[in-house]
Amino acid sequence: MDANHAYTDLIHRVREGRLLGSCAELLGWDERTYMPPRGSDHRAQQMALLARLAHEMSTAPEIGGLLAAVEGSALVQDADSPVAANVREIRRAYNRAVKLPRELVEELALVTTQAQPVWQQARKNNDFPAFAPWLERIVRLKRDEAAAVGYEGHPYNALLDEYEPGATTAEVTRVFADLRTDLVPLVAAIIDSGRRAPHEIVEREYPVDRQERFGREAAAAIGFDFTAGRLDVTTHPFCSGIGPGDCRLTTRYNPRHFNEAFFGVLHEAGHGIYDQGLDPEHFGTPLGSACSLGIHESQSRLWENQVGRGRPFWEHFFPRARQTFPEALGDATLDDFVFAINDVRPSFIRVEADEATYNMHIILRFELEQALIAGDLKPADVPAAWNAKFRQLLGLTPPTDALGCLQDIHWSSGGVGYFPTYTLGNLYAAQFMEQARQDLGDVDGTFRRGEFGRLKGWLNEKVHRPGQHWRPADLCRRVTGRPLSHRPLLEYLRRKYEPLYGL
Amino acid sequence: MDANHAYTDLIHRVREGRLLGSCAELLGWDERTYMPPRGSDHRAQQMALLARLAHEMSTAPEIGGLLAAVEGSALVQDADSPVAANVREIRRAYNRAVKLPRELVEELALVTTQAQPVWQQARKNNDFPAFAPWLERIVRLKRDEAAAVGYEGHPYNALLDEYEPGATTAEVTRVFADLRTDLVPLVAAIIDSGRRAPHEIVEREYPVDRQERFGREAAAAIGFDFTAGRLDVTTHPFCSGIGPGDCRLTTRYNPRHFNEAFFGVLHEAGHGIYDQGLDPEHFGTPLGSACSLGIHESQSRLWENQVGRGRPFWEHFFPRARQTFPEALGDATLDDFVFAINDVRPSFIRVEADEATYNMHIILRFELEQALIAGDLKPADVPAAWNAKFRQLLGLTPPTDALGCLQDIHWSSGGVGYFPTYTLGNLYAAQFMEQARQDLGDVDGTFRRGEFGRLKGWLNEKVHRPGQHWRPADLCRRVTGRPLSHRPLLEYLRRKYEPLYGL
Repeated sequence: MDANHAYTDLIHRVREGRLLGSCAELLGWDERTYMPPRGSDHRAQQMALLARLAHEMSTAPEIGGLLAAVEGSALVQDADSPVAANVREIRRAYNRAVKLPRELVEELALVTTQAQPVWQQARKNNDFPAFAPWLERIVRLKRDEAAAVGYEGHPYNALLDEYEPGATTAEVTRVFADLRTDLVPLVAAIIDSGRRAPHEIVEREYPVDRQERFGREAAAAIGFDFTAGRLDVTTHPFCSGIGPGDCRLTTRYNPRHFNEAFFGVLHEAGHGIYDQGLDPEHFGTPLGSACSLGIHESQSRLWENQVGRGRPFWEHFFPRARQTFPEALGDATLDDFVFAINDVRPSFIRVEADEATYNMHIILRFELEQALIAGDLKPADVPAAWNAKFRQLLGLTPPTDALGCLQDIHWSSGGVGYFPTYTLGNLYAAQFMEQARQDLGDVDGTFRRGEFGRLKGWLNEKVHRPGQHWRPADLCRRVTGRPLSHRPLLEYLRRKYEPLYGL
Repeated sequence: MDANHAYTDLIHRVREGRLLGSCAELLGWDERTYMPPRGSDHRAQQMALLARLAHEMSTAPEIGGLLAAVEGSALVQDADSPVAANVREIRRAYNRAVKLPRELVEELALVTTQAQPVWQQARKNNDFPAFAPWLERIVRLKRDEAAAVGYEGHPYNALLDEYEPGATTAEVTRVFADLRTDLVPLVAAIIDSGRRAPHEIVEREYPVDRQERFGREAAAAIGFDFTAGRLDVTTHPFCSGIGPGDCRLTTRYNPRHFNEAFFGVLHEAGHGIYDQGLDPEHFGTPLGSACSLGIHESQSRLWENQVGRGRPFWEHFFPRARQTFPEALGDATLDDFVFAINDVRPSFIRVEADEATYNMHIILRFELEQALIAGDLKPADVPAAWNAKFRQLLGLTPPTDALGCLQDIHWSSGGVGYFPTYTLGNLYAAQFMEQARQDLGDVDGTFRRGEFGRLKGWLNEKVHRPGQHWRPADLCRRVTGRPLSHRPLLEYLRRKYEPLYGL
């Protein structure tokens, strides 16, 4: 077969599978936003059908044939070319998909669907033993998955690779270890400083309608395009990139806490700006798709934390916040407010953690997951292992499993290998931002004027537009000139916290 | 092949095609409610893919084979059995689908997609000649469609049958002619009475938020289940039955007109109550699908008009309306209000017409469509023919084509044969309601107490639950003991208008 024709046909097929996937994405968004309660059974049937059809499309033997016809050809001779990247990543996804036996895929889908309500109930009742047999089944299935997909080195590599293509347990362990080494004394110094952030400022009355307006303004200001997106309310916030011109954010409002919705919106808008920055011409192919979960998370964390929790951002937005919430912020100063939104305190719940201690929560999960997948830790022993590590890392003992190993949905939904991408996101965000500051000069000056276009344009060009042209580690090297390191994040945290805590 | 197995397989395939269709239904709903503006190109691609896949599923040669295996078997020996009905209607839809050449289907899709913005512009500019060549193409394609599908008698039968299975031009002509004969003098008598409804009552200020609350309450009261449905806002109101447990209504609010949203909501809720009354066990098969557009419309018109514009309904709801809209209705009496919502006046626009003159608008379109499809009327001559008929039927001459033959979207979207189902709906509604009054006794008494469950239960059992077990004409005979007649509608209109207009 002519390689050019084969490539065209290959792209057409892959794009069509993704187009069908984007229909499921919309149904998933609707399920969590507007679907009436009694619609869930029918929705489950719709989703199962779309998943099956999309799976059939993406594992069609014709794709294997077309890949083979292209891979030997001159089309991919230049391994750095966009075409070669598309072929490389289509091959990667195809191999993963066809290596998984149908029975394993179906059992995983079934078990995780059933496990989620069990987990929910177990968390509510603080009853780990009720969840333990399900965790055991899921760990066994994920071990089977790793074996089916294949790996070099640690079996966890096979799972990590799903979310962070090309990343290895060894590399991640190294950079996380460096981070931990420097982070532990920083957090200790913060606690020992005796200073405490005036956090009650953000725990005053913030009327929901005004929170919504203020959050929208900020999301639009940093560059989220509302003519190509929406913001709705859900219990669990997310960003859903349906396709070119259609990206949907959600958040939840707490009338007695400013941070929850506001930084949630900035976070999801960061994801959304990434999705909106992908090349629409390449929709449905690797070149038009997000690089990895870690890179995706870097974009949400960059806008939420690196930009949104910085003093320059609030030099512009704080006067507006005071106008919007005069009862809550009338007597607050900019300094107090900035300190309040940068409160560092070891705590039990990951999603409520500050920027520094957050990474400890991830390192803990990353280590436990490796042990589970290697077979070194029995699922039944997770609570004890969790609590021991928590004491080591954060100096606290979770009083209950609900505040410990039962807090996250990920394991019950089969998302083993997902957690490390959160801290990878923090690391990439810091390293990208360090580079952006070098390339763009006084970017803080633009933030002080409420202008974010220069940074957004830089991210569009350097990080968003390439899609999966480069794997995450390569993208990082190309954008920043260096491999991923813990240093930029550490230096960023030190620069922020040393003045606040008088270190 | 074993007929039982063939039937099971057949049902499975048909249901799956419909399940995919229901995904497109949800995407269509989203497109008109919440999709961001820049999402439309991607949505068009999603819809095209789903349409193609659903078409492939519903025209798969395997379905023909399975049908053949079942049709000769003992399974369908009793022609009145549910299984026989499913097979009969699957065959009907399959034949229609496979008889249409692929090129014709694609050309129709393309031409109507392009014609709609042209029509929109032509209506805006009152420029029929701009639309005429498109109407010509569409009429030609619909004639080709009729020829491909096949028909006995009038070619219009082939088009009418798509919306109203089994209905014939001859039968509809007969009942419409009877209706016209009696309706013309009734309308003339109303005009000659010299009485005029106090319509300005409904043209006062009705704040949108209170309209919404009031409309929801009424929709829930008549039996629309909001745990299995929603109500949203769109430019063009509709009801979309996604599937069991999920039916979505839309409306639009006019802050200076009570009727638009309120009766719109009752109308769409009537459609929704029908969809919610279909048998979920039979979802995706004819037994779990609406009987016809005419029967569907009968349910919306029944709740909107037969119930919602009746005095008993307002004996319950008027005190609530006055509480809700004290500024608008504080000084209005129940009598004046009921007269105001039953204002009869010949007018140019179909969708704004009252219950009596509405049917004249339909008879006009029905006659023109037949002439177009028979080749007796050239598309270029439509404006003259329209205006001549309008004078005959309604005594007015449309001052512009925008207020005449350009007012409706149907022709530009290829919906030739659709219009008659509106008046069929009015006729069925009156005939069903007459029967319900006989079967249920003092149903008005229940309305006066705000109770609608007895009528809804009767409709559920008699009209909704059978799905497509019977074709519309048969359903009518089974439910009311008689073939469709113009009499119940005429008598209903006389009973309503004679006292109001002192006839």
